[in-house]
Amino acid sequence: MSGRTYDKMTPEERHRDRRQRLLDAGFHLFARDGYHAVGVREVCAHATTSQRSFYAHFTSIEDLLAHVYQRCAGDAVDVLREAARLDTGDPTRRLAGVVGAYILHVTMDPRRAHIMHREVHRTPHLAGAARRMAGDLADVLHLAADTTAGRLVAVAVAGAIDELVVTWMRTPGDQHGISRITAAAVTVAQQSLSDRSTRA
Amino acid sequence: MSGRTYDKMTPEERHRDRRQRLLDAGFHLFARDGYHAVGVREVCAHATTSQRSFYAHFTSIEDLLAHVYQRCAGDAVDVLREAARLDTGDPTRRLAGVVGAYILHVTMDPRRAHIMHREVHRTPHLAGAARRMAGDLADVLHLAADTTAGRLVAVAVAGAIDELVVTWMRTPGDQHGISRITAAAVTVAQQSLSDRSTRA
Repeated sequence: MSGRTYDKMTPEERHRDRRQRLLDAGFHLFARDGYHAVGVREVCAHATTSQRSFYAHFTSIEDLLAHVYQRCAGDAVDVLREAARLDTGDPTRRLAGVVGAYILHVTMDPRRAHIMHREVHRTPHLAGAARRMAGDLADVLHLAADTTAGRLVAVAVAGAIDELVVTWMRTPGDQHGISRITAAAVTVAQQSLSDRSTRA
Repeated sequence: MSGRTYDKMTPEERHRDRRQRLLDAGFHLFARDGYHAVGVREVCAHATTSQRSFYAHFTSIEDLLAHVYQRCAGDAVDVLREAARLDTGDPTRRLAGVVGAYILHVTMDPRRAHIMHREVHRTPHLAGAARRMAGDLADVLHLAADTTAGRLVAVAVAGAIDELVVTWMRTPGDQHGISRITAAAVTVAQQSLSDRSTRA
């Protein structure tokens, strides 16, 4: 057994705890090994639950990936909205804050970047969720920039930011990687979305 | 039989013809049904070849997808380089030409967009090829813009353009979709990469 003090938990707490451990195991294993290399048996061993418990919470490995992704995306959107709420009085600076907060959040735990930018593409089942995440990012950027630019420009900027995160994921040895991609992302966001040009 | 005049072909021509038909079948079926729904049997039926012929050219369905993708990516890079060669004397206009030519090429046959922007993600095996394509697009944009902006900004702009193509793929009913995404892509590219601001 896992050594957890199950005797102090109510059945509902135990249920939630198992679900949490299964999500944590999926998060770790999908990010490390990739969706196609992960099976129910391995997830259960990592989460120290039975396969019966797995199927009480998820219908399949694909379903687990969907929930792992949703948790990552939900956290990212929370961070975005939090950053967008900071009223700096200056849309250009607020935009930089939102872009910086998003990149810092997604890259802080590289597993998050791997789930959100690599594993999400492995199954057609997650296409809708990925599009919603991209749309949420675009909406927050568009709102934060307080811009006359069209929403499609914000969609493009969201894609630019995600491409930089993917680039960063491919160069794990780069010490200054995060600050370099953040600088490039802020440049593209401000140049494309700020009504006042930020160029000297 | 397919009614092709095989008797007029040399063995080498027949070999090339079969390979071409298998690539065409893969291109069509992957784009229409998705990688995971396509099998060797179906590809062969569509290409009117035997399974033995299939394995004379490709090791697996994944290998076929890789070659279908490579053909798409190679064509796209040719179009990009051609557009970049047009010397308008004005980097800002050349950049718009390159962006427009790329989007037109990728969207003209929606199957191409589906292979390049959706199916490419279905297997880890193609990650390297997708990164090379993104890198080639970034390089051509960077060169065409003749800019002091760093290469990472061009990488971001390449991601912005691809995000717009993905957005266009999800709204097949939009009559003006291509011109709208092209306008947004040109805006982001010019604002981010042109040394002279193009804003009024």
